[in-house]
Amino acid sequence: MRRLSLEQYVDGVLRGDRVILARAITVIESELPSDAELAAQILDRLLPHSGNSRRVGITGVPGAGKSTFIDALGMLLIHEYGENLAVMSIDPSSPISGGSILGDKTRMERLAAEERAFIRPSPSRGRLGGVARRTRETMLLCEAAGYRNILVETVGVGQSETAVRSMTDFFLLLMLAGAGDELQGIKRGIIEMLDGMAITKADGDNKPRAERARLEYARALHLFPASADGWTPPVLTCSSITGEGLVEVWKMILAHRQLIESVGFLAERRNSQALEWMNELLLAGIEDSFRKDPRVAERLPLLQEEVRRGAVTPFAASRDLLRLYR
Amino acid sequence: MRRLSLEQYVDGVLRGDRVILARAITVIESELPSDAELAAQILDRLLPHSGNSRRVGITGVPGAGKSTFIDALGMLLIHEYGENLAVMSIDPSSPISGGSILGDKTRMERLAAEERAFIRPSPSRGRLGGVARRTRETMLLCEAAGYRNILVETVGVGQSETAVRSMTDFFLLLMLAGAGDELQGIKRGIIEMLDGMAITKADGDNKPRAERARLEYARALHLFPASADGWTPPVLTCSSITGEGLVEVWKMILAHRQLIESVGFLAERRNSQALEWMNELLLAGIEDSFRKDPRVAERLPLLQEEVRRGAVTPFAASRDLLRLYR
Repeated sequence: MRRLSLEQYVDGVLRGDRVILARAITVIESELPSDAELAAQILDRLLPHSGNSRRVGITGVPGAGKSTFIDALGMLLIHEYGENLAVMSIDPSSPISGGSILGDKTRMERLAAEERAFIRPSPSRGRLGGVARRTRETMLLCEAAGYRNILVETVGVGQSETAVRSMTDFFLLLMLAGAGDELQGIKRGIIEMLDGMAITKADGDNKPRAERARLEYARALHLFPASADGWTPPVLTCSSITGEGLVEVWKMILAHRQLIESVGFLAERRNSQALEWMNELLLAGIEDSFRKDPRVAERLPLLQEEVRRGAVTPFAASRDLLRLYR
Repeated sequence: MRRLSLEQYVDGVLRGDRVILARAITVIESELPSDAELAAQILDRLLPHSGNSRRVGITGVPGAGKSTFIDALGMLLIHEYGENLAVMSIDPSSPISGGSILGDKTRMERLAAEERAFIRPSPSRGRLGGVARRTRETMLLCEAAGYRNILVETVGVGQSETAVRSMTDFFLLLMLAGAGDELQGIKRGIIEMLDGMAITKADGDNKPRAERARLEYARALHLFPASADGWTPPVLTCSSITGEGLVEVWKMILAHRQLIESVGFLAERRNSQALEWMNELLLAGIEDSFRKDPRVAERLPLLQEEVRRGAVTPFAASRDLLRLYR
């Protein structure tokens, strides 16, 4: 697609033009070397206008209904709170085809039709680092375009929780009642990352089970020391069908925001995230400069072929290339 | 710990000395620059003796009981099939503390007491790439030490499925009956990766549910085209408590092995894995050479501090460093 001028992108995004926002994101996500400079300029110009949103990361066990939840929560934000929101996802999972069985079209049906919701699927699949970097940049553009709530969903086989956690202010885990041994199933790693938990599908016959699961999880979370900001992750129940409990989930997110803002932890969290982000940019940059090195570019395909044929070990080949590079 | 000589490591591993194997793995996992050369030499010498095992990757939904399953399967392999095995895991999840709530000691209780089982926990947590690389190298050492079956378990919040898939011959997914909408919960990405599925906890009252889940999953898997090797992933049920179904799981793994060996896909799969591995080594190598660059090493801490204080954006800082490096 034809590119606009830098000014057109910047002005368009800043006045909240959805079409130009989408096109600016396309430039950011582009793999074309010719787009790299433009992408950097767009980001440079829009960065000062970013940061002013609630960034919420959402993950969940299989079957917890992440998309339905986001659809319902988004509708609540728009129609009850007068908010707007942008939804994005990180899906580095499938180099083959990616996505859920149901496909992206039937997900977030209602939200997709809303003027005040901007839904952007995951950038084209690839290595997690690159996908996460682009999702992060997409988030900044959406903030510059005036979206005050950003929901970042993990998709795929679950490589992306840490990445999503590292770009959001609140990390929400959606759980399901009755998924086996409740306690043993939660890994310490994810417990330490989360700011709140919601048991979904708490409706109809399932309500008592959801409530039991809520109690069990809440007890489990109490075994962990409170985090440095003094926040203990609450455990709630909700239903994306009846809508029950969604207001409480949102209020939890707002309460957390108020707390971390008041004690200075929001700034601290975002600053340490900026460091991780710098690291991502560095890794991408040095890999790029490696691949563009003329000696490497000449030798790499040959060595790859030899490794694939089993004629050279990966060790020997990588040593050889690194020696050339240095 | 004092290091042995190269010859002592090589001889010790090749004669299957478990203590020396463990110490050789420690060298491989070491972050000390002084160990890097020794680690490379050990790998160089042992690589020709590796490759001769069944490499099985095992992942599972929360609560599916991965460790109990591996414990039971391992006991079966040792006592019914006269096999030996090495068990390792990839856990990049928690930079804070890592591991499951129950801790590593109570996991794989029976297997841990077996002479013919070698259990090695995940290398110290860190970025997925580095952890995966070391697990892969640990696998090679175990093969050189004569272990004929390698089980690689995913641990943590689930970033590691792709990494485990990329170093094994058979990728097994453990599922649980009744974990919500059975079909919607499975992502296309994981379906395309797996070679077989087992519904665990198929015992007592849970048996009929497990069987129903099995049928549903089997139907779902049939919606996917068969993979290039002509293998359709079977769906089985099993119980780690009664042991029922475990023999069938093992037979599935053996049947798959026979098929991919006969049509040449084992060699092909391993060769393309060698390519990915080379890529990991390259990324680690170029990052290393970046961090050791004297100009970078001098400037990096200053810029990190400025980014953390919010005085410089991650973009500007990374551009600055990359310019220095080039």
